[in-house]
Amino acid sequence: MADADLAFSPRARFALYGAVRAKAPLVQNITNFVAMTFSANVLLAAGASPAMVHAEEEAEDFSAIASALVVNIGTLSPPWIGAMKRAAALYRARGKPWVLDPVGAGATRLRRETSQSLLDLKPAIVRANAGEILALAGTLGGAKGVDSLAGSRSAVAAAQSLSRQTGAVIAVTGEVDYVTDGARLAAIHGGHAMMARSTATGCALSALTGAFAAVAKPFEAAVAALSVYAAAGAIAASHIRGPGHLPASLIDALDVLDEPQLAAHSRVEIE
Amino acid sequence: MADADLAFSPRARFALYGAVRAKAPLVQNITNFVAMTFSANVLLAAGASPAMVHAEEEAEDFSAIASALVVNIGTLSPPWIGAMKRAAALYRARGKPWVLDPVGAGATRLRRETSQSLLDLKPAIVRANAGEILALAGTLGGAKGVDSLAGSRSAVAAAQSLSRQTGAVIAVTGEVDYVTDGARLAAIHGGHAMMARSTATGCALSALTGAFAAVAKPFEAAVAALSVYAAAGAIAASHIRGPGHLPASLIDALDVLDEPQLAAHSRVEIE
Amino acid sequence: MADADLAFSPRARFALYGAVRAKAPLVQNITNFVAMTFSANVLLAAGASPAMVHAEEEAEDFSAIASALVVNIGTLSPPWIGAMKRAAALYRARGKPWVLDPVGAGATRLRRETSQSLLDLKPAIVRANAGEILALAGTLGGAKGVDSLAGSRSAVAAAQSLSRQTGAVIAVTGEVDYVTDGARLAAIHGGHAMMARSTATGCALSALTGAFAAVAKPFEAAVAALSVYAAAGAIAASHIRGPGHLPASLIDALDVLDEPQLAAHSRVEIE
Repeated sequence: MADADLAFSPRARFALYGAVRAKAPLVQNITNFVAMTFSANVLLAAGASPAMVHAEEEAEDFSAIASALVVNIGTLSPPWIGAMKRAAALYRARGKPWVLDPVGAGATRLRRETSQSLLDLKPAIVRANAGEILALAGTLGGAKGVDSLAGSRSAVAAAQSLSRQTGAVIAVTGEVDYVTDGARLAAIHGGHAMMARSTATGCALSALTGAFAAVAKPFEAAVAALSVYAAAGAIAASHIRGPGHLPASLIDALDVLDEPQLAAHSRVEIE
Repeated sequence: MADADLAFSPRARFALYGAVRAKAPLVQNITNFVAMTFSANVLLAAGASPAMVHAEEEAEDFSAIASALVVNIGTLSPPWIGAMKRAAALYRARGKPWVLDPVGAGATRLRRETSQSLLDLKPAIVRANAGEILALAGTLGGAKGVDSLAGSRSAVAAAQSLSRQTGAVIAVTGEVDYVTDGARLAAIHGGHAMMARSTATGCALSALTGAFAAVAKPFEAAVAALSVYAAAGAIAASHIRGPGHLPASLIDALDVLDEPQLAAHSRVEIE
Repeated sequence: MADADLAFSPRARFALYGAVRAKAPLVQNITNFVAMTFSANVLLAAGASPAMVHAEEEAEDFSAIASALVVNIGTLSPPWIGAMKRAAALYRARGKPWVLDPVGAGATRLRRETSQSLLDLKPAIVRANAGEILALAGTLGGAKGVDSLAGSRSAVAAAQSLSRQTGAVIAVTGEVDYVTDGARLAAIHGGHAMMARSTATGCALSALTGAFAAVAKPFEAAVAALSVYAAAGAIAASHIRGPGHLPASLIDALDVLDEPQLAAHSRVEIE
């Protein structure tokens, strides 16, 4: 087993989850209305401390006390864009990580322009689906509203290119998740198809990624967050009949996830 | 069995649900904060593709790619009204259907005026409770906040009159649901009293009606959507002890609903 | 048993819950995006009629028809502050009770200033955690984002002082809940640690407190609301494995709560 693989072993990834639980980082979220409640509950289940704080007037005070920021443009409107940019700039200036979730990046001009402005503010990590990554990279994406018609594999080259252009770690989620820092590429296996049938599952993963970014470097944080979520999602789906119970079951799975479960229900390959 | 009845047989209604699942229409929702998450999950469970997109700046771009619009005034405020009107006008101009849910229409002047302005923009379908329909029709309604004190039957004449005035199909929901296009009147039996004890159940039905409006004519769409929801609600309620689990159970029921279940748990009469 | 104790016996407290169920008070909520859906469902489960209505333009009309108001500053932004103040002033002027939930009061200047302005508008009841009460009382609080690091007992003196200054009944929730009107102090035992691991649990309790304030005097209302919630929370937690199912289980427990359950799962001491 190569050193690179050891760094992403179940033990190493679970150690980062242990760090989230031990440090309980305060994570500020400027996120969409659909995802707020579930994102807060995912962060609480992981042992982090969520704060849904979106006023531009609070960005300065809050960036001083929080450890990481998550910006999600799902229910975008102009009054929120100023706060997103101000907060992102403040976290960047303070050397604190922030995560961008560019929901529906290719669907409208407002989303394209906002995503680009936010990318210029140097997120540590971008978490998105294939269609959104293809749109950000300027490639013709297969977007349908906020869902992606393209498989995650099809966006790997665009993700690598986008990572090299922006300096951000790019996480593309789908049936298999991919994380790249431009040089390295990790493939994360796990999860369950039911996760795509419950709203805000990806948004809440972005929130969780923010908690990991508060305790580890971006590439390691993203790989660990995605594999923890993939394992919890697979366990959650195994306990239920349909997508209606997925959010509650996923929270319960995150709450008690241990290292053997992480090892059994997720797999990371470094390419 | 008359032709009119055949057109609303379980087979015919279920065929429209099959069309929603097969075509997965993209449905834009400008809806209230309480209902957003549940509405998105109801649309996903039905096989549609939900988008919660409310910025006036996105209305033009989004109306070009989506198949239907749902406007719900539940948590109304002036900054949203412009977007509601702009989006409604655009869908109308493009010949795409839009559904109005005039939450609390009679409770305040802002709601009365906004509902009237939106009615002028020609929704294909209005989905509301009896108190709201009575308020829209200018009749003295029994409104208490956003809930209705009046039974749905008491609003049938007002619904027929409103339908003739506006050209919209009117769906009045309650213990029995009624749908009218001014000439025809359908009564939909099914559902469960527990549905009124869980918030946003009616709002999410309006969202579902939008998905059906994307694949069928308004009267047929409304009857099919309401009967599918009534069947799923009855099934959902039979699996649980209390209203806390209704949303998750309703989503699961929608997810797997088949034609025999629709036939067993809903009934449509054409008057 | 002293008279004071009799006034807070399970029978007396349950009688107030019976009054909520019988009168079904219409409760206006200007609350945060995270808590809206759960708060509405908690009010419905208690038999009250929730309305999430936040437009300043509706404050006059709505304060005329509703019985109580709940203001929660969780996802604060300047456009909402005007509506909060206007609504609070109107309820006060009409002699109707309103409840303040000063989420994260100590975390930012915007929250400190807004909380103080709202306190000046004479809430009947303030429901908060220890860190928020310490911040409102001008004491150095142990706030971490919106969660409190301080135990509820540590804020009792500050709560008593704040009550005397403002005339409001102060409810400090935590492992043990305390309610004071400056003279009396009630300690409410019950609940479950899992309640702190599900978002908006405290916010929804503030909403429920608004329903009780519509049917009883502030001190009695707060004690009854907190003990009903504590009992329902303990029952809810006993039925589930993890925090993911807490909201649904708590709603079901509130829905069917009876006097023996209230007596068995909550305890009130008057000091």
